[in-house]
Amino acid sequence: MARMSTTIDPFHDQTFHAVQARDGHRSGVDAILLAAIVPPDTLGRVVDFGAGSGVAGMAVANRCSRASVDLVESDPAMAALARQGVALAENDHMAKRLKVIDADVTSSGQQRREAGLLDDCYDVVIANPPFNDRGFRPSPNTLKAAAHMMEEDLLENWMRTAAAVSRPSGRLFMIMRPQNLRELLDALVGRYGAISIKPVHAKSNKPATRILVSAQRGSKTPLRLLEPFTLHQDSGAFTIEADIIFRGRAGFDLVSA
Amino acid sequence: MARMSTTIDPFHDQTFHAVQARDGHRSGVDAILLAAIVPPDTLGRVVDFGAGSGVAGMAVANRCSRASVDLVESDPAMAALARQGVALAENDHMAKRLKVIDADVTSSGQQRREAGLLDDCYDVVIANPPFNDRGFRPSPNTLKAAAHMMEEDLLENWMRTAAAVSRPSGRLFMIMRPQNLRELLDALVGRYGAISIKPVHAKSNKPATRILVSAQRGSKTPLRLLEPFTLHQDSGAFTIEADIIFRGRAGFDLVSA
Repeated sequence: MARMSTTIDPFHDQTFHAVQARDGHRSGVDAILLAAIVPPDTLGRVVDFGAGSGVAGMAVANRCSRASVDLVESDPAMAALARQGVALAENDHMAKRLKVIDADVTSSGQQRREAGLLDDCYDVVIANPPFNDRGFRPSPNTLKAAAHMMEEDLLENWMRTAAAVSRPSGRLFMIMRPQNLRELLDALVGRYGAISIKPVHAKSNKPATRILVSAQRGSKTPLRLLEPFTLHQDSGAFTIEADIIFRGRAGFDLVSA
Repeated sequence: MARMSTTIDPFHDQTFHAVQARDGHRSGVDAILLAAIVPPDTLGRVVDFGAGSGVAGMAVANRCSRASVDLVESDPAMAALARQGVALAENDHMAKRLKVIDADVTSSGQQRREAGLLDDCYDVVIANPPFNDRGFRPSPNTLKAAAHMMEEDLLENWMRTAAAVSRPSGRLFMIMRPQNLRELLDALVGRYGAISIKPVHAKSNKPATRILVSAQRGSKTPLRLLEPFTLHQDSGAFTIEADIIFRGRAGFDLVSA
């Protein structure tokens, strides 16, 4: 295998680092926002679905000192990057609480369990489903219906697996695009309740570019739409609140908010 | 029939009035917010589903001087109040553009057409579905599943009728509670697209109490989550923006926003 050109990137004010491909998908804002909604006092086991190079899961481990985090990734090259990241000297303070699992979140129960992703054992599932780079855009071409169906299937499969690996009353935290809101809500029905949605706006006067989602396994509490979060000031600089989040100094409370 | 005790209530800075039952459901904030998302340059025919005493539909007629509005109400007592309201001298400036139709939005196509609610003839449908006073709350009692199902059916039936009476590319505007978001999105699938959702917060730091929704018949444009609107300042007084809306001096643009 040709050696991939990589970079070592700092996060949370350089309190942890990740190894990322120079030319591939690079994590940043979404992964750190996702980790920011996991309560810092989280105890027990967390699993990061589709972890990629592991930024979101490592950010959770960095924020939640009493949680262990399993990074689940089906792409061997990405899983290798995640393992390199976990092994960095800069991450020694949390390396014992991190593990990379080579598994496909969408695979069947038996395959998934054999890969090490077991039923009924996680207190928290986090997920940043891979819609963002696949270009879900309205277009008249014939691929559209098929692409859309694939997305519905992916969310349905991810939420089925999330429910299966979750302990009773376990929490789910996600970041995704608002345009897939219906597919998400349909995939959560009968599995998760207490759904809280926090819109994320790049600019305060533009439509939301992301939603942060919290849910609880088996809950019957109705859906809530929380006050939004804005990333950028009019000048283009990050808002004070965003800056604090990216430095790893604070999070969002979607659970009790 | 015993004569109902009524009041004559001013709206939009006393530029129109409605007749409401003293002890029954009284319209106010929701009806005026709903009317505020109908573009003031709307041409053609508007229909108000479940119009009650007609406040939302009359507010649309007051804002949109080139639109005619049909107020559809199945409860004869409410329809009578709406007729009294339309006939008030204070509403002379728009009475010719208002008509009350005694029809049940949920009834079958043939019944509905016989009642005067015809297919394919409205440019705009507005709706404030009657969930608000039925108490959709999480509770362990056995009525909950049945009540929830009824709500899903109601939204499905209302959206089926909205699509049937709408012209091609017609607009839909609604106000409802956030907790029924999934049921709404499911009812819109295959009928309406270009869904824009504007959260309404009573206070800026609390979860949204309502959502304003815009959609277009047959559109494939993806869902958008717009910047929120806040009703009250921390002091409890209306925000400047809310005050302007209630005075009928401005609206929200959910269509091109």
